[in-house]
Amino acid sequence: MVILSKEIGITVKKASDLSEWYTQVVTKAELADYSPMKGFIVLRPYGYSIWESIKEHLDSRLKESGHSNAYFPLLIPESFLKKEASHFAGFTPEVFWVTHAGENLLSERLAIRPTSETIINDAYSRWIRSWRDLPLLINVWNSVLRAEITATKPFLRTSEFLWQEGHTVHSSKEEADQEVMMILGFYRELIEQQLAVPVLAGYKSEREKFVGALYTTTLEAMMPDGKAIQMGTSHNLGQNFSKPFEIKFLGKDEQTYYAWTTSWGVSWRLISAMIMLHGDDRGLIIPPRIAPIQIVIVPIYFKEGSKASIITKAQRVADTLRNAGLRLRLDTRDQYTPGWKFNDWEMKGVPLRIEVGPRDVDRNELTLVRRDTFQKTIVNDVRLVEQTKKCLEEIQTSLYTKASDALKASIRQAENYEHLRKLLDEKGGFVRACWCESEECEDAMKTETGATIRTLPFDDESVFAACVKCGRVGKKVVYLARAY
Amino acid sequence: MVILSKEIGITVKKASDLSEWYTQVVTKAELADYSPMKGFIVLRPYGYSIWESIKEHLDSRLKESGHSNAYFPLLIPESFLKKEASHFAGFTPEVFWVTHAGENLLSERLAIRPTSETIINDAYSRWIRSWRDLPLLINVWNSVLRAEITATKPFLRTSEFLWQEGHTVHSSKEEADQEVMMILGFYRELIEQQLAVPVLAGYKSEREKFVGALYTTTLEAMMPDGKAIQMGTSHNLGQNFSKPFEIKFLGKDEQTYYAWTTSWGVSWRLISAMIMLHGDDRGLIIPPRIAPIQIVIVPIYFKEGSKASIITKAQRVADTLRNAGLRLRLDTRDQYTPGWKFNDWEMKGVPLRIEVGPRDVDRNELTLVRRDTFQKTIVNDVRLVEQTKKCLEEIQTSLYTKASDALKASIRQAENYEHLRKLLDEKGGFVRACWCESEECEDAMKTETGATIRTLPFDDESVFAACVKCGRVGKKVVYLARAY
Repeated sequence: MVILSKEIGITVKKASDLSEWYTQVVTKAELADYSPMKGFIVLRPYGYSIWESIKEHLDSRLKESGHSNAYFPLLIPESFLKKEASHFAGFTPEVFWVTHAGENLLSERLAIRPTSETIINDAYSRWIRSWRDLPLLINVWNSVLRAEITATKPFLRTSEFLWQEGHTVHSSKEEADQEVMMILGFYRELIEQQLAVPVLAGYKSEREKFVGALYTTTLEAMMPDGKAIQMGTSHNLGQNFSKPFEIKFLGKDEQTYYAWTTSWGVSWRLISAMIMLHGDDRGLIIPPRIAPIQIVIVPIYFKEGSKASIITKAQRVADTLRNAGLRLRLDTRDQYTPGWKFNDWEMKGVPLRIEVGPRDVDRNELTLVRRDTFQKTIVNDVRLVEQTKKCLEEIQTSLYTKASDALKASIRQAENYEHLRKLLDEKGGFVRACWCESEECEDAMKTETGATIRTLPFDDESVFAACVKCGRVGKKVVYLARAY
Repeated sequence: MVILSKEIGITVKKASDLSEWYTQVVTKAELADYSPMKGFIVLRPYGYSIWESIKEHLDSRLKESGHSNAYFPLLIPESFLKKEASHFAGFTPEVFWVTHAGENLLSERLAIRPTSETIINDAYSRWIRSWRDLPLLINVWNSVLRAEITATKPFLRTSEFLWQEGHTVHSSKEEADQEVMMILGFYRELIEQQLAVPVLAGYKSEREKFVGALYTTTLEAMMPDGKAIQMGTSHNLGQNFSKPFEIKFLGKDEQTYYAWTTSWGVSWRLISAMIMLHGDDRGLIIPPRIAPIQIVIVPIYFKEGSKASIITKAQRVADTLRNAGLRLRLDTRDQYTPGWKFNDWEMKGVPLRIEVGPRDVDRNELTLVRRDTFQKTIVNDVRLVEQTKKCLEEIQTSLYTKASDALKASIRQAENYEHLRKLLDEKGGFVRACWCESEECEDAMKTETGATIRTLPFDDESVFAACVKCGRVGKKVVYLARAY
């Protein structure tokens, strides 16, 4: 058999070079490919199927809670972006500008959306007249572009990314607050329960909040190299957009009010955290609940004589599990050996392998092999569905528990600034510290340590010390980290 | 009650001004809205839910037949577009060009994809090595941009549109031929069986085929004003892209071959044909199989006393029908009268209304009202599910039959050129004629009559006359029409 390039496994250890390991996993598991244009990647079918899994899960939560999908134009006139000044200032350095249509110079240059607040709020101002039209709960699945000048990293640093952006309008601040927190809850459920990625939840600082927001809430995960990833954010935009865009409504009291808006999003970044957190030296490990393929069935025959009965049994196993609602692939490709298939599906992170060999046929048994621990279990045919489901749940729980333990272990408390620097340099992670709430200290810490305030936790933790930077009165507990 | 602008119905008759009627239906039924930028529209939640219905149907057909979804970059370097010369020449006049990222002038200008053959085939050349990698069957759901200089018409003439583009690679022309025809079959099933829009199927002429294709197959529908709409196309690209993009594979015989590729797409145009064909003076009529909301249940009470029992019954009806797999809305909005609700849901084209009034509660009955005929049927509670399903199927069939009769009636045969012009001017429709296959005649007919050859039918119809234009030997039967 010809050795194809894709048959070669990952050539570095995850623990020794996470960055190179990540790039190899992403490309060799065929999740994504680099594109000839710097900053742009191709999401290949296997990677897209993971995104579809994420999408389906979140989309049904959003629909159940009254949100609808819609689509807004890709291009936004420069004058729109400018309507909310800080928003414009924040995004304009990374905007791709369209200047020509065919041979014709456009009268106003158009931005490819870096996010859609402006064009969406403009439409809302035409659609909303009275309290009867509220709340307006819309979500969009699209791609946005923000020029990325540093090295491309699939799913993490790309000039174009797939995401969803939600944009809602409410009649009061309280209702907008509730929306923001409900969405953050959906995100947390998706990230922790489906992707098995534990997170810290809280507010962003004024400096780190979304440009144009009243406040931003965030979910932050920790990677094995001690760097944090921002997983999802949900913003209360206050009346910062409703005023310049004139989103007004007639209340039940016949008075006119400015509305309150929110926006929120998660992107394909979610996939990067899942890869880095769960993968091992053989490749990806995808948590069963989100895995596009939860089980791969590999028939094993060395003599042609046993082939027919083995294939028949493998087919029966596939039918049984599919009828039980499980997502699986029966790999009957004749051009590859079982060993090659094991490597291939391990690289792709399918959480459970079922082997069907001659002995399994003779004894009415099956062999289950866990992707995360490689533990083998012999299961009697009659207990197939029950044992398979149990095994998938165990993998899900085990991945989450391991990651959750690692997150907890990564959090250390800084007594003073030297200690903070030492903790960050030692092995990164989240550093818990007190902060005086001045932007001066925040900026200095970022410049001097490379770490940012990732979040101010929701649960009002009592301040335990002076500001870690200036030694003045500590006002807030914060979690700092270097981040992707 | 305040009269809102959206309470005002459609102010023109469909038969007297189709164009104005269309615009009003699209905006008043809240399918789409104009955007501040010429050529761009917003797809509102109700319109998007129709697109989602279309998408789900086609997506599952594509997946069942082995296709996977993926995502490719929005921006394409100019040098890529140029690799297939006729393709470039065809698209470049309508391309939106990106020249800057932030403040920086790009070294090469980038096209916003007008279609993705070039960037996708470039990726394929890296992914395909041997016959083991074939066929490669990928589909993409995205939006594409083609600058539209004429007046914007939602779903029909817009500078950005949502669509799917499929791109497949095969080891032989025969396999590519089969793919092209299989996809056209999926499209036809979607368009005729789901959207209830009958079509003519066939080849495009050389002049009208996709730029860069070996040949193009098409489905063409006829609108009430006598103009055709191209509904979907499926192209065999031959080796026209595999050669410049170097898509080669090692055959089982260890020889290297250029691959054969196809591409195919349908867009949100499908929605425009559905609107024009089925709608009436009260608004939209959506065929039940594709309708996001198949049934609206409207409780009717005038005295508060009867409200509780009516709402309870309406709720029970909703649960029963939902459990039977039907898509419905129970409209319990207190701020609107039943009459207002009737108008609203008629405008939105929900195919079936179920009224629950005091008499219906007393008599264990329900009133079903068809959107297409306004025919009322009194149904006993116990036969609810059966009668509702039957009624929805009747509406589906009836819409298709009516449209199919209209399509057939629109086809007339031209004996000579004068006759052709007369038929077109009289009331448009498809004109069946013979053609000598010269581009000269084709061009002249287009210039002089405004009609194009919409299709050359698959079923090898025997030539019945001389070329309708030049009178020389007729070689092919064609269907001509003016088109959107």
